[in-house]
Amino acid sequence: MPRAQQWVQYFLSHRHVTMELINKIDEAHYDFKPTPTSMTAKQLATHMVFSFYNFANVAKHGDPALFQPKMEDPETNLAKLTETYTEKTKQLLESMSDEEFNRTIDLTAIFGVQMSAKQLLQMAMDHEIHHKGQLFVYVREMGHTDLPLFVKRG
Amino acid sequence: MPRAQQWVQYFLSHRHVTMELINKIDEAHYDFKPTPTSMTAKQLATHMVFSFYNFANVAKHGDPALFQPKMEDPETNLAKLTETYTEKTKQLLESMSDEEFNRTIDLTAIFGVQMSAKQLLQMAMDHEIHHKGQLFVYVREMGHTDLPLFVKRG
Repeated sequence: MPRAQQWVQYFLSHRHVTMELINKIDEAHYDFKPTPTSMTAKQLATHMVFSFYNFANVAKHGDPALFQPKMEDPETNLAKLTETYTEKTKQLLESMSDEEFNRTIDLTAIFGVQMSAKQLLQMAMDHEIHHKGQLFVYVREMGHTDLPLFVKRG
Repeated sequence: MPRAQQWVQYFLSHRHVTMELINKIDEAHYDFKPTPTSMTAKQLATHMVFSFYNFANVAKHGDPALFQPKMEDPETNLAKLTETYTEKTKQLLESMSDEEFNRTIDLTAIFGVQMSAKQLLQMAMDHEIHHKGQLFVYVREMGHTDLPLFVKRG
């Protein structure tokens, strides 16, 4: 399988679970947070979908200047926002050539290191999986008990 | 950097955060769970450290028969248990040759698929990161607010 297709598959195997969890959050729970110092459900979900898109955009173009410290979008429905950014992220990943995956990107200004695009994408995956783990606890605390496995294969 | 050293570094960049969180859990909170259907803190921590060791042992030896569906250990202190299994897991990873990383393992009986040892180890990493995300919420609910970043580099 081509490198780009492998990454699309890997991304979606986790993102589809993220979407399933976000689809369970009704608007009444958008401001839910498990403790006073936690992110709200809305902040957490938005942070996840913006971050992966942001990382994938930098990875695709090999340009750290594309990193957006603060993204915004007028869409207020979390499920719709997630669907839109999942599609945009998927399109970026599937457009990547092997050269683009292997290219070194100077991320010293953002993360203090240089890394290849594929290392940046692995960091994006780890970030998604980390926050998805938190989201599982949030959604269970909202009263949902019929939850998916942490990853959806095949 | 040799493949084995890269994996040790990647494993520890997340496991050291897991250890930091587990070290914050006092015995009075071992049975804490955020909802009635959640794992307790003790079950979650134990599941994490046993699972990675188990996956790494199968990966190192290329032998699915080594997979232990139910591990047990007489150690009742979570910090000590984590320290012991982190060391055992690190030793397995650092002993692996490139051939062992690339070897295909028949995991159809456990996961329904064949995969290479390095794919199995990536799954172990994803599993660790997922549950560590949950552990962050648990530890914050126990009253801790001074928490590490989700990954420790360098």
